Amino acid sequence: MPRQAGTKEVTKSALLEAGTKIMLEKGYNNTGIQEVLELTGVPKGSFYYYFDSKEDFALQIIDYFDTNYAQHLGQFLDDKRLSPVERLRAYCEEGRKNFEGNHCRKGCLIGNLSQEMSDQSEALRARLEEKLTRWRNRFAQCIKEGQERGEISRDYDHVQLAEFFLSGCHGALMRAKTTKTTVPQQAFMTIMFDHVLKPRS
Amino acid sequence: MPRQAGTKEVTKSALLEAGTKIMLEKGYNNTGIQEVLELTGVPKGSFYYYFDSKEDFALQIIDYFDTNYAQHLGQFLDDKRLSPVERLRAYCEEGRKNFEGNHCRKGCLIGNLSQEMSDQSEALRARLEEKLTRWRNRFAQCIKEGQERGEISRDYDHVQLAEFFLSGCHGALMRAKTTKTTVPQQAFMTIMFDHVLKPRS
Repeated sequence: MPRQAGTKEVTKSALLEAGTKIMLEKGYNNTGIQEVLELTGVPKGSFYYYFDSKEDFALQIIDYFDTNYAQHLGQFLDDKRLSPVERLRAYCEEGRKNFEGNHCRKGCLIGNLSQEMSDQSEALRARLEEKLTRWRNRFAQCIKEGQERGEISRDYDHVQLAEFFLSGCHGALMRAKTTKTTVPQQAFMTIMFDHVLKPRS
Repeated sequence: MPRQAGTKEVTKSALLEAGTKIMLEKGYNNTGIQEVLELTGVPKGSFYYYFDSKEDFALQIIDYFDTNYAQHLGQFLDDKRLSPVERLRAYCEEGRKNFEGNHCRKGCLIGNLSQEMSDQSEALRARLEEKLTRWRNRFAQCIKEGQERGEISRDYDHVQLAEFFLSGCHGALMRAKTTKTTVPQQAFMTIMFDHVLKPRS
């Protein structure tokens, strides 16, 4: 049912929200602006008041998604009641559960667009890269804290390990999307937490 | 320049080759049959003689790509002059070098389509899954041999480790495509080979 937007802010938010939903399910190239307009009940002219182009729309969707995701990350990585390893594990387990709750569909908007669009649009690639690097740095900070506490192996450089962690999460998610099970995510977590991160005795 | 196909076999191969090239660069949804026809000089009617639909074309492209990739994998994984770990490392290093040679573009057709199409087409998802699981099993066999020789840690189940290896390769490739550097692949290889696989002393 089309939603009637009250103010400009609400209209823009509704467009971003609908765009996020559709793009997460169908990717960039398979998403039509017309579908977004139909879902929101916003006229075409209003869309182009807020967004210069489909690419600009996607750039703003990435920002919108990232603002919410930064809060989601913070719920885990800033939870000082948990040790650094417990924070990382809780983050992964929540991701696995959410994905399972979505019937192993959709995955991560930033990961999906990275794979699909990094060679197609330099503007999108740069924006995606900015977000992913920021996420990686947050993981690196958590890993560094774990190393300082002696909870995570010091055999690794913390930034390199964070890169390994980030790409491992995304690779496992990609595989999970294709197997339609969370087995690849479980394999990732088992080896990551029970072996890789553990200090060698 | 349009290529004139001599026989039916040549025509079909030319279509599959052109389709692989374009789909690797642009993904499924962004690839037009018209572009494939123009690149090969094959008329539309001939295309539909060989392929029922765009989806059927993609299914056959996946098979075509996989046949070649199985040989590529064999060059490394069946090279008995190398130890199991050396085979896996040579495979990764070759992948990294190839990707660098492509200016960090394209990546892996099977990985790209998995990410883009696993939720869009059940037929494509199942075909992609079949190929990826076969690759994983080849890695698992190599890892098992390494464990038997005492070259790879026996702390892990070999199939689970192969899943971790496969998804890690794909995640690092995805990140490398977005960073436009091979740093994520280097981080993956360093941690995988210098730490994860090594038996704990």
